[in-house]
Amino acid sequence: MSEYRGYTGRSLTLLKDCKAKVGDTVRITGELTYTGILMPRYEYNDDEHIVLKLKSGYNVGIKINEIKKIEVLSSNEIKKETLQSHPKNSLLPKVLLLSTGGTIASKIDYRTGGVTPALTASELHGTIPELSEIANIDTEVLFSEYSENLLPEHWKKITEKLDSYAKSDYKGIIIAHGTDTMQYTASFLSFALAAFPIPIALVGSQRSSDRPSSDATLNLISAVRFVIECNVRGIFVVMHHNESDDLIACHLGTRVRKIHTSKRSAFQTIGGDPAFLILDKKIQKNLDHEYFKNKNYSPKINYDAHVVLVKYYPGFDPKLLTTIIELGYKAIIFEGTGLGHIGKTLYESVKKAKERGLFLGMTSQCIDGRVRMTVYESGRDLLNLGVIPLDNMIPETALVKAMWALGNTKNVDEMKSLMLENIASEITN
Amino acid sequence: MSEYRGYTGRSLTLLKDCKAKVGDTVRITGELTYTGILMPRYEYNDDEHIVLKLKSGYNVGIKINEIKKIEVLSSNEIKKETLQSHPKNSLLPKVLLLSTGGTIASKIDYRTGGVTPALTASELHGTIPELSEIANIDTEVLFSEYSENLLPEHWKKITEKLDSYAKSDYKGIIIAHGTDTMQYTASFLSFALAAFPIPIALVGSQRSSDRPSSDATLNLISAVRFVIECNVRGIFVVMHHNESDDLIACHLGTRVRKIHTSKRSAFQTIGGDPAFLILDKKIQKNLDHEYFKNKNYSPKINYDAHVVLVKYYPGFDPKLLTTIIELGYKAIIFEGTGLGHIGKTLYESVKKAKERGLFLGMTSQCIDGRVRMTVYESGRDLLNLGVIPLDNMIPETALVKAMWALGNTKNVDEMKSLMLENIASEITN
Repeated sequence: MSEYRGYTGRSLTLLKDCKAKVGDTVRITGELTYTGILMPRYEYNDDEHIVLKLKSGYNVGIKINEIKKIEVLSSNEIKKETLQSHPKNSLLPKVLLLSTGGTIASKIDYRTGGVTPALTASELHGTIPELSEIANIDTEVLFSEYSENLLPEHWKKITEKLDSYAKSDYKGIIIAHGTDTMQYTASFLSFALAAFPIPIALVGSQRSSDRPSSDATLNLISAVRFVIECNVRGIFVVMHHNESDDLIACHLGTRVRKIHTSKRSAFQTIGGDPAFLILDKKIQKNLDHEYFKNKNYSPKINYDAHVVLVKYYPGFDPKLLTTIIELGYKAIIFEGTGLGHIGKTLYESVKKAKERGLFLGMTSQCIDGRVRMTVYESGRDLLNLGVIPLDNMIPETALVKAMWALGNTKNVDEMKSLMLENIASEITN
Repeated sequence: MSEYRGYTGRSLTLLKDCKAKVGDTVRITGELTYTGILMPRYEYNDDEHIVLKLKSGYNVGIKINEIKKIEVLSSNEIKKETLQSHPKNSLLPKVLLLSTGGTIASKIDYRTGGVTPALTASELHGTIPELSEIANIDTEVLFSEYSENLLPEHWKKITEKLDSYAKSDYKGIIIAHGTDTMQYTASFLSFALAAFPIPIALVGSQRSSDRPSSDATLNLISAVRFVIECNVRGIFVVMHHNESDDLIACHLGTRVRKIHTSKRSAFQTIGGDPAFLILDKKIQKNLDHEYFKNKNYSPKINYDAHVVLVKYYPGFDPKLLTTIIELGYKAIIFEGTGLGHIGKTLYESVKKAKERGLFLGMTSQCIDGRVRMTVYESGRDLLNLGVIPLDNMIPETALVKAMWALGNTKNVDEMKSLMLENIASEITN
């Protein structure tokens, strides 16, 4: 956490002058006198107030105009923890742990009450000593971002980093990642690194690592065990499978969705069972075939983010679709209703999009099931207009795939073939 | 089906000249001679071809330039079925059946192979004679549209029609409706007609009424039974609950979602059990309290469709959000990630939206669970920017509610209170 986090302008100057830092216990004298912990502020706050957490637990905002004096009573110097060096056992398999941020790499700041992405991969490893009994783990921090702030450019950086380890002696690679957009990253990696030589597991947690109900430990241990023992190539998401603290699911990166905001078992394989289940130390395989078994690894790590996901709803303004087309995007993934429909009112705009050469793909907002555009008139109309049905591809996966396909092809025809080719088990039976 | 459905321009003129109508068996003489059934075309086809279904089952498109003669061999006059008048039994309760279209009111045209919304409410009633044993059913056709083509203006028409029956002697009202956007209509009715004096059940089917696997009959019979016996006010969606053909679920109109493209059990109550289950003739109540029990009926039937649902994803272009704001919409419902987040890259646009006075509501794309924007920095940042968390409201319900609230209030503050007030059980514990 930055020492002056969130303070800007006049309030920042004042704090610096008084050498008061976030987390310090301070006494502020003005019209009244307050003693408390100096709290962080958020980016979009004004620069006219300083916030203290009082002993009562309440926060108070004090106008800087009224402040006569700030005294630091006790400082909260952030101590650099001296990490124990992890004992290496050369008989154990080697695993790489990359950290990108997220709850799994977060801890609660008990003084200020907020959750912050502060743990490094190494600290994370340090908090779970069991790990050193099953693997020799090297750790590396890529970034420290909540996943809602990850962008396609982050996907590319992760991909490049992973690709640099394609010929390493690691048995598998773990990526600590926020759960908010984990499925999007997992999809990108699945396409970009199809047939990567060793298994890659994205792992997250819904409760931060230092809370009693945290799922971080079991998810991480299971992910390490999984990449060592699964003996299959692919990109997987490893998370709690139910509310009990013993069953872990490993989902295919292209078929997984976050389906609950807060439960530890927030992830689900759509339209089937998870590829693997881990109970105690036993790994049960549900995959009926190994998708990348006889395929060569040939990374395609570019992207082009000129894609829009359009979720249809009654009253969707045709003008909005026309505007999207005019903004110069190259592809639209529709999240249509039912078997793959959008209302007639959008047909003229769809026609225009097609004339401009956009790729138009259809998925369904129904979560599960296939689009089938030959059953009803609406579907057939859309087929005639050039909309491409994307079978049972998850809308978010289709969006990511379109960004990936656009980045790695030269023309719309090639992109269309890529979209229809089953690259990483994104279409299932 | 229109007699010349889909034919335009030159092809339409030619067919009219020859008195050949869709469904007729015709012989076309040109370079070759073809005999077959004249097929309908779709709105966006050219006007240069006429399509025949040959005996082989294949369709052939014939260029009108090459056609020398079209002869009608046998005509497929659409016979107006003489409907049996339904025997009325004055001891049975009265129920009104309104038809809006959809698969439940569709049949396959076995000659042309397409599914068309052709059954009227009266025909539908006529195909299920069991209905006359449990109720005296009056029928009325409002429109014949697949629900992907229904717009907020259709919602309003349905609402006005229902309101006109608020003081009738009907025990309940059934609305036959396409499943694609049934949840959106159900939400609108729930808000507009909150505390309507008698139960309203939307009923649909996933397979058209004349197919052996159709769910239309059981869904419709159950809906009629439900409105007669449930003894509760509210708007419900009545559909198959599982793949067996005996269990029917009645979902609260604001808490239901279509979660499969093709299964008969496509609908699910999000975050809880269905309000009622119907097994054989037994109706089991799961509702823990009757939401409208002591409330007065006071319809609010307007809407304002200047609302956009924005589903966030990595790479969502801030320019797109800015453009949405500049197009003059009055409210944005975000379908954020996880507990209610969108990426930092959108903060500037969010700020602009707030400055322009837009209502900004946050829901989650996780399907289930609550938004909780105080847990992480991202959430707190967005709260500070004026984004309003909408608890566990389903995104589609929140969108419809925003359209409804905008249509029935004068200012943003009033609209905000309506959005946060639990009007029709759209927020649950």
